[in-house]
Amino acid sequence: MTEEHTLVVTAHAGDFVWRAGGAIALAASRGEKVTIACLTFGERGESAAEWRAGKGLEEIKASRREEAEAAAAVLGADVRFFDAGDYPLKVSDELTHQLIELYRATQPTVVLTHTLEDPYNGDHPAAARMALDARVLAGAIGYPAEGEVVGAPPVFAFEPHQPEMCGFTPEVLLDITEVWDTKRKAMECLSAQQHLWDYYTDLGKRRGVQLKRNAGPNLGFPSSTYGEAYMRFYPQVTERLA
Amino acid sequence: MTEEHTLVVTAHAGDFVWRAGGAIALAASRGEKVTIACLTFGERGESAAEWRAGKGLEEIKASRREEAEAAAAVLGADVRFFDAGDYPLKVSDELTHQLIELYRATQPTVVLTHTLEDPYNGDHPAAARMALDARVLAGAIGYPAEGEVVGAPPVFAFEPHQPEMCGFTPEVLLDITEVWDTKRKAMECLSAQQHLWDYYTDLGKRRGVQLKRNAGPNLGFPSSTYGEAYMRFYPQVTERLA
Amino acid sequence: MTEEHTLVVTAHAGDFVWRAGGAIALAASRGEKVTIACLTFGERGESAAEWRAGKGLEEIKASRREEAEAAAAVLGADVRFFDAGDYPLKVSDELTHQLIELYRATQPTVVLTHTLEDPYNGDHPAAARMALDARVLAGAIGYPAEGEVVGAPPVFAFEPHQPEMCGFTPEVLLDITEVWDTKRKAMECLSAQQHLWDYYTDLGKRRGVQLKRNAGPNLGFPSSTYGEAYMRFYPQVTERLA
Amino acid sequence: MTEEHTLVVTAHAGDFVWRAGGAIALAASRGEKVTIACLTFGERGESAAEWRAGKGLEEIKASRREEAEAAAAVLGADVRFFDAGDYPLKVSDELTHQLIELYRATQPTVVLTHTLEDPYNGDHPAAARMALDARVLAGAIGYPAEGEVVGAPPVFAFEPHQPEMCGFTPEVLLDITEVWDTKRKAMECLSAQQHLWDYYTDLGKRRGVQLKRNAGPNLGFPSSTYGEAYMRFYPQVTERLA
Amino acid sequence: MTEEHTLVVTAHAGDFVWRAGGAIALAASRGEKVTIACLTFGERGESAAEWRAGKGLEEIKASRREEAEAAAAVLGADVRFFDAGDYPLKVSDELTHQLIELYRATQPTVVLTHTLEDPYNGDHPAAARMALDARVLAGAIGYPAEGEVVGAPPVFAFEPHQPEMCGFTPEVLLDITEVWDTKRKAMECLSAQQHLWDYYTDLGKRRGVQLKRNAGPNLGFPSSTYGEAYMRFYPQVTERLA
Amino acid sequence: MTEEHTLVVTAHAGDFVWRAGGAIALAASRGEKVTIACLTFGERGESAAEWRAGKGLEEIKASRREEAEAAAAVLGADVRFFDAGDYPLKVSDELTHQLIELYRATQPTVVLTHTLEDPYNGDHPAAARMALDARVLAGAIGYPAEGEVVGAPPVFAFEPHQPEMCGFTPEVLLDITEVWDTKRKAMECLSAQQHLWDYYTDLGKRRGVQLKRNAGPNLGFPSSTYGEAYMRFYPQVTERLA
Repeated sequence: MTEEHTLVVTAHAGDFVWRAGGAIALAASRGEKVTIACLTFGERGESAAEWRAGKGLEEIKASRREEAEAAAAVLGADVRFFDAGDYPLKVSDELTHQLIELYRATQPTVVLTHTLEDPYNGDHPAAARMALDARVLAGAIGYPAEGEVVGAPPVFAFEPHQPEMCGFTPEVLLDITEVWDTKRKAMECLSAQQHLWDYYTDLGKRRGVQLKRNAGPNLGFPSSTYGEAYMRFYPQVTERLA
Repeated sequence: MTEEHTLVVTAHAGDFVWRAGGAIALAASRGEKVTIACLTFGERGESAAEWRAGKGLEEIKASRREEAEAAAAVLGADVRFFDAGDYPLKVSDELTHQLIELYRATQPTVVLTHTLEDPYNGDHPAAARMALDARVLAGAIGYPAEGEVVGAPPVFAFEPHQPEMCGFTPEVLLDITEVWDTKRKAMECLSAQQHLWDYYTDLGKRRGVQLKRNAGPNLGFPSSTYGEAYMRFYPQVTERLA
Repeated sequence: MTEEHTLVVTAHAGDFVWRAGGAIALAASRGEKVTIACLTFGERGESAAEWRAGKGLEEIKASRREEAEAAAAVLGADVRFFDAGDYPLKVSDELTHQLIELYRATQPTVVLTHTLEDPYNGDHPAAARMALDARVLAGAIGYPAEGEVVGAPPVFAFEPHQPEMCGFTPEVLLDITEVWDTKRKAMECLSAQQHLWDYYTDLGKRRGVQLKRNAGPNLGFPSSTYGEAYMRFYPQVTERLA
Repeated sequence: MTEEHTLVVTAHAGDFVWRAGGAIALAASRGEKVTIACLTFGERGESAAEWRAGKGLEEIKASRREEAEAAAAVLGADVRFFDAGDYPLKVSDELTHQLIELYRATQPTVVLTHTLEDPYNGDHPAAARMALDARVLAGAIGYPAEGEVVGAPPVFAFEPHQPEMCGFTPEVLLDITEVWDTKRKAMECLSAQQHLWDYYTDLGKRRGVQLKRNAGPNLGFPSSTYGEAYMRFYPQVTERLA
Repeated sequence: MTEEHTLVVTAHAGDFVWRAGGAIALAASRGEKVTIACLTFGERGESAAEWRAGKGLEEIKASRREEAEAAAAVLGADVRFFDAGDYPLKVSDELTHQLIELYRATQPTVVLTHTLEDPYNGDHPAAARMALDARVLAGAIGYPAEGEVVGAPPVFAFEPHQPEMCGFTPEVLLDITEVWDTKRKAMECLSAQQHLWDYYTDLGKRRGVQLKRNAGPNLGFPSSTYGEAYMRFYPQVTERLA
Repeated sequence: MTEEHTLVVTAHAGDFVWRAGGAIALAASRGEKVTIACLTFGERGESAAEWRAGKGLEEIKASRREEAEAAAAVLGADVRFFDAGDYPLKVSDELTHQLIELYRATQPTVVLTHTLEDPYNGDHPAAARMALDARVLAGAIGYPAEGEVVGAPPVFAFEPHQPEMCGFTPEVLLDITEVWDTKRKAMECLSAQQHLWDYYTDLGKRRGVQLKRNAGPNLGFPSSTYGEAYMRFYPQVTERLA
């Protein structure tokens, strides 16, 4: 039997917390492995306050890394940093190759990443592009990299900051109520972005309300249900329509 | 706990066999109820051979009904005929009301119907339109009909004859391998359309091949896997990304 | 010079408050006229609590009307009820004709209505369909109704409850910060839906955050900026790109 | 108060005249600054007649430059040439960086560029891609370039030669009637493309006719109204629906 | 061998001239039959000048009819009037049935009609809807109407007044150069709309320019090539890619 | 008169057989030239069985080449190999330039290539991207390459393995019945992929069935009609609607 392993490919150090913290905590709570690939620290594009405070590049990277490690620990996941440089993060053969190696090493059964469109931040589509390319290449026995070829794990896009501008529609609503406190704690590790804690708490509630409205004749939801929204890049394969 | 009940809303008597026979047989094989609503017998639009053979309207309707009843029995489902008249099937308040009553009587947990577009057959979108409207209205306590209001069951569109012309993409690939023989037997109940038996066997194989290509690192599929393709009208609600 | 007059065409009595309360209050605050057309009271589809409490149809309609009148008064708008019956609200020649008469009587310079898609509530597209049809017909001198023909006022769709499922993208972000307190007071007139007060306050904040991110090099926004999102049905006509 | 400054990013030397001459002249007529960035001279792809006449590369570039400078002067704008080489114009880090410097130097309040799709000319999407990327990067304090970070100015796509093939719909119709003569004079600076003078005069009239049909109850348009069509890349932010 | 017969289904008396005059004249010039079905005279929605001049309904209808008959004669086509009433033209079973009878009587090999979207004129989509429905129903032997069932002729949408707002893209560019003078003469039969003569001459030129740019390595086009644009509702069936 | 010449640009050595073998054989059967550009041998991504059998890279390339040459000979086409390396095939200036030279050398009147989207194989969009870019550049007299500039030949996308996931709709259905046996023989040259022979035979039948349903009042099709599906990248230019 295949061991479940979720691979999260993100552009910046904080992305996995706001966008997929619930999915990560849920998987971890089931005893599954989760590996987060942070392609950059978000040192240029997501650290405005520190730049304005006059901090230096290495200092900012270190602080982003520290926060992300703390948040990953709260969620129960491993995190790997690729330090590929942000703003702009560039699609490159070398970074794609490193991701291929990660796919072969981790043998993911689920992959999470950004959407392929984001007019507010080109690093997000770049990360998604490489996550998707690497997944296909890692599955070809002819591709020269160490490790076993991987299968074709389902890939989900997590929700961007302005979903409607990124072609994002919530195709999958994930019930994260039982790990909500964990996600909130992970968000609070990102101390520089305190204004987002409530913003993403509100979003969790909103997606929870929608989840209940789409949940069928199931009356068991608590009044404060929290949700996360995802899109699929590939068809769902299932043995049961539900 | 809610009892599982699949409601299939179709325009013509044979539709449920070609398009959803696998899903129906799977549900029945799990001991769940399945109710098929055939809004018409397909007496005008789907019975060209009989018309050319000079048969009369009532005779044709009886023969369509008989075939559909036999196929439903093979699949393990109940079938209800509404005899609303095809070619064209018209969207009407009265027929929608009858469907609302059926929703409230059956309390479906899953609904299957046609796509909302079909440039080759306007009866299909009409049936889908009413299936969707009735689902919403049946859920409103203020709507005057007998029975308990229903929840918001997920709705799936089954695959039309020319999928790419109907805006259909296979969002969900259902593994029907284990009930394939049952589906084939049900198809063979539709003796007037023998040329479609192989056509839909080929389609089952094609969707099975695609299913395996999207199934992730799961190597357990038999070489002849059969699939059916579906679209969702509403977001999937889940407790696990997979 | 044309007198500014905003016409709001909605399906149910409460819609104008949640979805367009800010736009209405802004227009009224500039001394402009606003007329709200409520095609139904939302008596069947939007009054579940009262039905569960055993109230009767007329009683429910009266209570919806009362709330809507109070909210309209807070916002500074006139409200007209058409009592066309909801769940389902049907597109009809007669109701369209009444709207044509209203267009000719009010000579609107801006029109607000629902989106043409809403898989959760068919009354909304029906109202939008009639609002749009009536606008075109009211502009034809050959159409037999009293009053002067109207021009071609811009039409905006306000934001539905689940925007991504209705094909809604926020093409226009309206800054409603200065009338936010008025909108909140109007929401509080809808006492049966207290759980939505905070829900739509959160939405107002979210759209406000997005508004600031799209507002260009304009640093004058207060930290709590509120917004409402709209789509256009027709091209914007302007003398200046901004 | 922010000073208004329009930045126009184009692939070839003549593009700004045919596609945005009216917007440029309008802005200049209001006393605002306009800077045009011509990434190439269009020396290979837009100069067929000269190549057929046996002219050399530098000669052609010089003649394109001269025409563009003359047209820009007529419109009242500054023009900067980047000489990045056309057919193909390639997206590059270096050119993007130069545009970032231009954004920071000019602090644009409005940006105009090509569409992101154009199956007839890949240089256009390349220019648009860099214009959009540079806008985002220029707004990040962490991006290492001189000058103040920029806000998030609205970006408009001007109309391509075959709009329907480029996903272009006229979301914004700009009334350029009062500067029409100026635009015509600027077109006439492009002496090698005389056959386009009437072509784009006809287009101006066509967009003018459509502008009047979408202009609402405003009867003040002259019979020969001229228009230019634009799309938005980002939501409009406004204090008034109109 | 099947006799070629083009059926044109239009909402108003003048539509066939502006939108499909070239295709009609071309077919007629090849000796083929063309039948035009005018569902209404355009008496309310397309006759503003006459209404303003105080003319009566019957008088307006007569004048529209006369013009259309003259234009059809110039083009070489038969025209049939259904007088179904415009603004609004309603989709109805009765009118659809009349069209079915016309399909069976004419056995069309090509069908031309409006687009299914037109936010400026709801009569156009209504006519297209019935043209398409009737085509499918006329092909069913079980549908009770006189005459032989029809095949599945290709259907083309002609170009609406504001193509980009109607989801229209020019999928097919028809070279009408050789019948241009005939089309122009037919336009001149519509004396009340003289301002459109030049407008549609300009459009013919514009589509001609685009035709040449998409015509492949064929250098034989005259400098003034005229074109008409069409969309397909169904796949093209061919024995040769070209 | 222009000599007809079909240029097929594909990513991997086998693509032209499964996807366009019918079109190629048809053109050849009319005495026209066909040139196939195989950008890679499919040595890494399309040769899993050989890799698993322990074969080496050069051996695999040789075997792919041999099969492709045999299949091309059966179909009656020339094949050129570019050996650009697959999985991933990268878009590059150099390879694009080689294609430009091929365009100028062959002066194609029809071009066939992949779709621009394919989430299962990034090599396909890369090949299509270069085929399209090269076509535009080869037509510019200013582009520095040998040979005459080319016109603007129509470009068709052939059908990908999972059409609905690649945005593919069958806009053109090509009747390949008369060359079916030739296509089958060419498929049988690809001995390593025997499981696909029947798969693509089934697809040929399916597209044939659809072809007949869209073919109009033409009753002459044999019961086993075979088809291939294509999309157009550019508008069709024609002298006759059909």
